[in-house]
Amino acid sequence: MKRTSRDIRTANRYGVLRQIIADSPASRQEVAAATGLSLATVATLVGELLELGLLTEVGFEDSDGGRPRGLVAVHAAGGALIGVDVAETYIHVELFDLALKVLARADTELKPGMKQPDQMVAHIADAIASVVVQSGVEPGTVLGAGISMPGQVDREGGSLLYAPNWDWHDVPLLGLLAEHVDYPLYLDNPLHACTVAELWFGAARGRSDVVVVNLGTGVGAGIALNGELHRGITNSAGEWGHTTLVLDGRLCHCGNRGCVETYVGAPGIMRNLRELSPDSPMLHPDDQTATIEALASGAAAGDPVAVEVVRETARYLGAAISDLVNLLNPEVVVLSSWVAGKLGRPLLDEVREAVARRALARPLAATEIVLCPIPTDPVSLGAATFALEGSLASVGQKAPRTASKTLGDRDR
Amino acid sequence: MKRTSRDIRTANRYGVLRQIIADSPASRQEVAAATGLSLATVATLVGELLELGLLTEVGFEDSDGGRPRGLVAVHAAGGALIGVDVAETYIHVELFDLALKVLARADTELKPGMKQPDQMVAHIADAIASVVVQSGVEPGTVLGAGISMPGQVDREGGSLLYAPNWDWHDVPLLGLLAEHVDYPLYLDNPLHACTVAELWFGAARGRSDVVVVNLGTGVGAGIALNGELHRGITNSAGEWGHTTLVLDGRLCHCGNRGCVETYVGAPGIMRNLRELSPDSPMLHPDDQTATIEALASGAAAGDPVAVEVVRETARYLGAAISDLVNLLNPEVVVLSSWVAGKLGRPLLDEVREAVARRALARPLAATEIVLCPIPTDPVSLGAATFALEGSLASVGQKAPRTASKTLGDRDR
Repeated sequence: MKRTSRDIRTANRYGVLRQIIADSPASRQEVAAATGLSLATVATLVGELLELGLLTEVGFEDSDGGRPRGLVAVHAAGGALIGVDVAETYIHVELFDLALKVLARADTELKPGMKQPDQMVAHIADAIASVVVQSGVEPGTVLGAGISMPGQVDREGGSLLYAPNWDWHDVPLLGLLAEHVDYPLYLDNPLHACTVAELWFGAARGRSDVVVVNLGTGVGAGIALNGELHRGITNSAGEWGHTTLVLDGRLCHCGNRGCVETYVGAPGIMRNLRELSPDSPMLHPDDQTATIEALASGAAAGDPVAVEVVRETARYLGAAISDLVNLLNPEVVVLSSWVAGKLGRPLLDEVREAVARRALARPLAATEIVLCPIPTDPVSLGAATFALEGSLASVGQKAPRTASKTLGDRDR
Repeated sequence: MKRTSRDIRTANRYGVLRQIIADSPASRQEVAAATGLSLATVATLVGELLELGLLTEVGFEDSDGGRPRGLVAVHAAGGALIGVDVAETYIHVELFDLALKVLARADTELKPGMKQPDQMVAHIADAIASVVVQSGVEPGTVLGAGISMPGQVDREGGSLLYAPNWDWHDVPLLGLLAEHVDYPLYLDNPLHACTVAELWFGAARGRSDVVVVNLGTGVGAGIALNGELHRGITNSAGEWGHTTLVLDGRLCHCGNRGCVETYVGAPGIMRNLRELSPDSPMLHPDDQTATIEALASGAAAGDPVAVEVVRETARYLGAAISDLVNLLNPEVVVLSSWVAGKLGRPLLDEVREAVARRALARPLAATEIVLCPIPTDPVSLGAATFALEGSLASVGQKAPRTASKTLGDRDR
């Protein structure tokens, strides 16, 4: 029993706001029906959110002869949220209003030599300053900035324990960033960001048990149970890319053999292509993106090699997704990240068939497999959502808990 | 958001009782500190449990000059619980008091030809009647009976959707049983029973994220997150035995190849032995139990073949447990069921080493691997706990929700 009354109240606050963002305007009665919470609880939570300026009253609706019911909606201008998606080669920053509409964007390319935390911090701080200026929002209305960093993240301490791309160990990222940025800061990884984005705005909304399969250069599986991200005991849940698909199979950069990632991550898919057709013109040995794009075009045009590579990749992916279906019995599996986006429908169709051949009948019948429906970058959206969740979690605390301040103080 | 206020209240009621069972007598303040619930919530829930007769007041303790604090304890005689463990070859029934002490047992052997639901129901009903008579408890104090059946269980409907041992399809077991047994009845599978037993009385008590690995003829992984069993969307979560360890590997009875179960279930371990030493005297081709016992004695005596079979089994098991560690990032992994019990410490040591070689550093460092510490049959204990949970879940409802009654009515 690690779940406190406070956790439950925060989770309920998320649930109420999530429902109203999904379906505004809404009456308290509708929110109660959709969330399963009591009307009294919903009324209290809506009251808090109105007081915080996150919701606004927008009139009344008739209730079949009863008293007219008050309607509330998200107060889009009631605050701004910043989402920062840091990847190996770029920093992508977006500023959102409270309806999660993008008001400004900033993109920074990261040169291959860029390995110092100070340089990274300066780039992130500049991009954050830029989106605030561009958007014209009052800096005082920014509720916070969420930062997604690839690697092992100590979320509560605000540091990067290990980032393989830059060979960082124990970098107190939020502490460094707090010297340049005065908003509350929240740190996590892209897998958790994508999953939270699906929970609030995507295919996981209103669903209880969901797995978000991230297919990029690396791969992972974000797990959402009972409508909440499962982080695990040290925030590292979701390392599905390093579960074994073929014992003693392909060598993985983690040091093991046969990891899922070596078959269905972008470099693994390149290898699937190379094994089938070593001289294929679709193969760009130093360019994952170009290779995956060539495969996508090829598969769309019916090129037999491209079709076969997609099918072989789906055979691996289908087995590994069947493992998730059998183990977790989820309602929805979402295929997300850039490889899934580019291979799209042909990959989805093959994966559905492969899972249908392999998963157990009962969990299979209960599971839907879909492509990520979020039209913008789910990582920056999810990162901004960390800031939204953070500000909701700090409601009722004397001062908002800003990881940045704490860390900044500790570093001095 | 499928979690209702009622669910949360029930979960809190479980948490409070679980804590008091673990550590009786206790003050409300101690329970609040241990569960993270507010003192007001604990006081309300303790009040309900006292009124139900599940707890009893047992005096006061000083509180450093403050007002003496009231102490409560489990009221062992406040009710009785029945746990039924049905396996391929036997029915094992235990009757417990509310401190979960065994007051009576009944064992029935199932003959190989015994395939009819009516026969099974008669055996279960006889065994239940027997433990009530033996124990001398007043039948009116029996809070319910939990039945663990191997197979796919429709828990809410009280039926067995599929039981491979007897080739049953859609058998309304609780409906049939309710014609003979007048207690509230609760149905689930052994994997879920073992996991609930660990949550209430074993290695998962007070831990948030736990995986209970069941090693028997079949294998599975019960998942407990935030102190609650994760059942999945159709109660079939945990089919880890049918996740892929070796793509295109050994043929499994589920129709796929390379499932974990084919390497670490009792028949899989027999195959590991046969592959290493086809003529080994430890191999009893038609007797799994005798073979596993021979391997256990052999390993204890340092027999090189037995040691090597345990090591090879642990290599498979270690890879498959690493998958759970990497994916779920649990605090504890418990090795349970009869194969783990018989191979015991030698298996545990080899598994720990194999997982240490394979799991990612961060989740590995946070995970403890232990043998099931429950000294009695965890399946019948867990089944009895279903009845305890069921009676706690029905607190405050007009009439206790008895799956048996509902089903019985529907069948007529």
